[in-house]
Amino acid sequence: MPIMLLRDLAQRLECALEGDADIEIRNIAPLEEAGAGDLSFVTDARFTAAAAATAASALLVGPDYRGTRLPLLRSAAPQLALARAIALLRPAPRPAPGVHPTACIHPTARLGAECHVGAYAVIGAECEIGDGAVIHPHVVLYDGVRVGRNFLAHAHAIVREDCQLGDDVILQPGVVIGGDGFGFTRRADGSHEKIPQAGAVALGDRVEVQANSCVDRATLGLTRIGAGTKIDNLTQVAHNCRIGENVILCAQVGIAGSTTIEDGVLLAGQVGVAGHCTIGRGAIVTAQSGTHGDLEPGVMYSGSPAFEHRQWLRSTAVFAKLGELAKSVQELRAAIKPAAKG
Amino acid sequence: MPIMLLRDLAQRLECALEGDADIEIRNIAPLEEAGAGDLSFVTDARFTAAAAATAASALLVGPDYRGTRLPLLRSAAPQLALARAIALLRPAPRPAPGVHPTACIHPTARLGAECHVGAYAVIGAECEIGDGAVIHPHVVLYDGVRVGRNFLAHAHAIVREDCQLGDDVILQPGVVIGGDGFGFTRRADGSHEKIPQAGAVALGDRVEVQANSCVDRATLGLTRIGAGTKIDNLTQVAHNCRIGENVILCAQVGIAGSTTIEDGVLLAGQVGVAGHCTIGRGAIVTAQSGTHGDLEPGVMYSGSPAFEHRQWLRSTAVFAKLGELAKSVQELRAAIKPAAKG
Amino acid sequence: MPIMLLRDLAQRLECALEGDADIEIRNIAPLEEAGAGDLSFVTDARFTAAAAATAASALLVGPDYRGTRLPLLRSAAPQLALARAIALLRPAPRPAPGVHPTACIHPTARLGAECHVGAYAVIGAECEIGDGAVIHPHVVLYDGVRVGRNFLAHAHAIVREDCQLGDDVILQPGVVIGGDGFGFTRRADGSHEKIPQAGAVALGDRVEVQANSCVDRATLGLTRIGAGTKIDNLTQVAHNCRIGENVILCAQVGIAGSTTIEDGVLLAGQVGVAGHCTIGRGAIVTAQSGTHGDLEPGVMYSGSPAFEHRQWLRSTAVFAKLGELAKSVQELRAAIKPAAKG
Repeated sequence: MPIMLLRDLAQRLECALEGDADIEIRNIAPLEEAGAGDLSFVTDARFTAAAAATAASALLVGPDYRGTRLPLLRSAAPQLALARAIALLRPAPRPAPGVHPTACIHPTARLGAECHVGAYAVIGAECEIGDGAVIHPHVVLYDGVRVGRNFLAHAHAIVREDCQLGDDVILQPGVVIGGDGFGFTRRADGSHEKIPQAGAVALGDRVEVQANSCVDRATLGLTRIGAGTKIDNLTQVAHNCRIGENVILCAQVGIAGSTTIEDGVLLAGQVGVAGHCTIGRGAIVTAQSGTHGDLEPGVMYSGSPAFEHRQWLRSTAVFAKLGELAKSVQELRAAIKPAAKG
Repeated sequence: MPIMLLRDLAQRLECALEGDADIEIRNIAPLEEAGAGDLSFVTDARFTAAAAATAASALLVGPDYRGTRLPLLRSAAPQLALARAIALLRPAPRPAPGVHPTACIHPTARLGAECHVGAYAVIGAECEIGDGAVIHPHVVLYDGVRVGRNFLAHAHAIVREDCQLGDDVILQPGVVIGGDGFGFTRRADGSHEKIPQAGAVALGDRVEVQANSCVDRATLGLTRIGAGTKIDNLTQVAHNCRIGENVILCAQVGIAGSTTIEDGVLLAGQVGVAGHCTIGRGAIVTAQSGTHGDLEPGVMYSGSPAFEHRQWLRSTAVFAKLGELAKSVQELRAAIKPAAKG
Repeated sequence: MPIMLLRDLAQRLECALEGDADIEIRNIAPLEEAGAGDLSFVTDARFTAAAAATAASALLVGPDYRGTRLPLLRSAAPQLALARAIALLRPAPRPAPGVHPTACIHPTARLGAECHVGAYAVIGAECEIGDGAVIHPHVVLYDGVRVGRNFLAHAHAIVREDCQLGDDVILQPGVVIGGDGFGFTRRADGSHEKIPQAGAVALGDRVEVQANSCVDRATLGLTRIGAGTKIDNLTQVAHNCRIGENVILCAQVGIAGSTTIEDGVLLAGQVGVAGHCTIGRGAIVTAQSGTHGDLEPGVMYSGSPAFEHRQWLRSTAVFAKLGELAKSVQELRAAIKPAAKG
């Protein structure tokens, strides 16, 4: 663990310092778990009470925070400062450069400088791996995979043949990049003929794919994930999708084939998107919603099938009392019928 | 890449040829990406405009296609012809027969002729693998697994003990065949006792299971997947299910235990099916729907809980304006009450 | 296969014996598949007809079962007795203690007595594994993993650095414990900065995690799964969740970050739970439901968004006829308008 003076942390995190600048900080912890020598943090006004009771030695806070006797690091962007504080105080373990003797690297593969390749990793023919890669045990790169600088691939991540990955890509354990797309065509007898999936996948710079998620290879051409897009666990991106930049796909999202997701879209957990659609730039789809057809940019959608979020809130409020609504209608019919007859 | 004359392609794909039969075709590509030497394709009338602008050298089209100056391969079944054209022009890489020196094959396992076994694959005791298998790196077959001819298992696919796979089975990366079923019974103190899962899984001929999907072993007996059934990524088939022939399970479908899915059923993405149900032959369940109880053969279902699709379309249309409907009912009550009182 | 006398089985399973105590039992099978020498079972009154037709040699039944000429093992808790009967008659294969020569175990790792470590398993620095572990091929334990007694890890299960597992933990194939949480914060330019995930995961005693499921490491501190909790396939537990004891998470459940699930909760298949919620002790959420906010203890919830189950049943019954309800309201408006005007 590194030890830092609070003054140095303030400088590194671009925070204003309030209070004793010479405190030694050894670790970072949530309010309830922090003790002497720990930096803690208040990134939300809900936690002000917990902050008053913490045993931490200093607090990282936002511009509006009031009310503690502890030394403060005050940031205009406290979430960003928190991310960087964790990186400084709890640096991730980084295996030393070197190739484990059991790694199985094809003689035609080219590795950059300062790479780490773990036990039983398999790197196929004609692969090109940029400088600074960390390839954990049991990673498999099929033939012809090209990867940029600072690749981080966790155990059992798989990249199939001919896929192209940019710089600073992170794959969590069990990720599958370039599995066959789900392409079949029905024969006259009801059986299914496989459409060979001859394309590949391209991941842009800084794409992160979390555990056990899948991005399928295109039938022809490329399935594309834009720079800076983050994909959570157990998510499915089907063949020939085009995902834009800085998109967020939460856990267990499923996107069917040939769909376009524009820049900055957020799909919350378990959302499903039909094939051959376009989801406009910056749209948000809330958890478990399902969409088909195109969605407007910048709008929030909910429901399955999804429509505009506020309207959906009204509909779901009525839905919870739908039995009573139906009863009202029945009573109205009973009240009106004699009148109508009369 | 193979080079073929258009006349030879026409013959191999059983297409009528219109135009110059002696063009050399080197590749196949979508309309927008195709260039000189490429075959492209129009399998849907929506793409007629793009076809007029393509730089491809020839087009594969259906019976109704009109309007281009390019040489044509005309097929009565253009999707099937497309599948075969990709197979001819972009043949999938096939590793040469042979066993990698690091593969760990039990002395009692039996491999057929012309098999490829990749690095670090593990094949257990008493396994039987038919001719022509391609077993990629890190595949693990537990003891007693029997597989037919032309097995294709991608990296990190796992088949647990005693499972039985037919001919021409394809497992994409990370598939788990024969994991324990989720069987527990509650003790008086609220804790759960594991019901041992002593059965296995049987996959019929030509079954394909895509990346990171799971088919659980039966408690006793077999979980069965019928011939020709195709299972997309991240799908869950629980213990003791019986899935028929030529069924399509799209991505992230979940089927609970002991359910029967009859032949030719299609479950779209993220569908959930409860346990101990039967889904009748040829039924279709649309994306994100959830079903319990039995479903009729040949009917399309939607919703969670699911009912007949067209009726669901009507219900969802009203649902999107449910706030207004409730307001109407309120107004009616207000209008009627004085009258009723009077 | 062991052979047991029915009298011995009765004693081991704590059942009353009715009929010939000296029958030899060799196996256990469902009613339809059972033959001579097999024990079968009737754990539900629906199967009484099938029981009459079975070819089994004896039946395991509950207190209320009537009507067969076969010898009976009668149990007050027939599901528990069934679990134990399978364990006796179909004991799971258990690899012999020993370390495969290809296993890659760091010199600072400590293994208990009577452990089995399979081919190509990787065990990192400073790992501590208790007595009686069975670690199948290709399991990867990163540095600093601590595990209790009787660990069972199937092929390709992964535990990342510093995670802590109790006694009798079972991981099915492809499980990922301790992958990075999905933590990002938005920069001013719309891109996402990674919040390092410096915590870990703690699994209590007797936790079982089924195939390809993921439990993410905490940002700081621990993601916790309580003793006796069972997690089915393809389930996602996000960073900093606290799951209680004896919880059941069915297949494809997704739980967002920092949520608390109290003891004895049951989340059915494909349920989604939002972040920062609490689901009260013993609550049940039915399949495909989605919840945000807190849920009361002991209540059954349904729907997305979820509310009390019986009320949801009423709402869904009306929903299926919502088109007709809307038509009724239209007719009422038409009938009332002239009256209102007059």
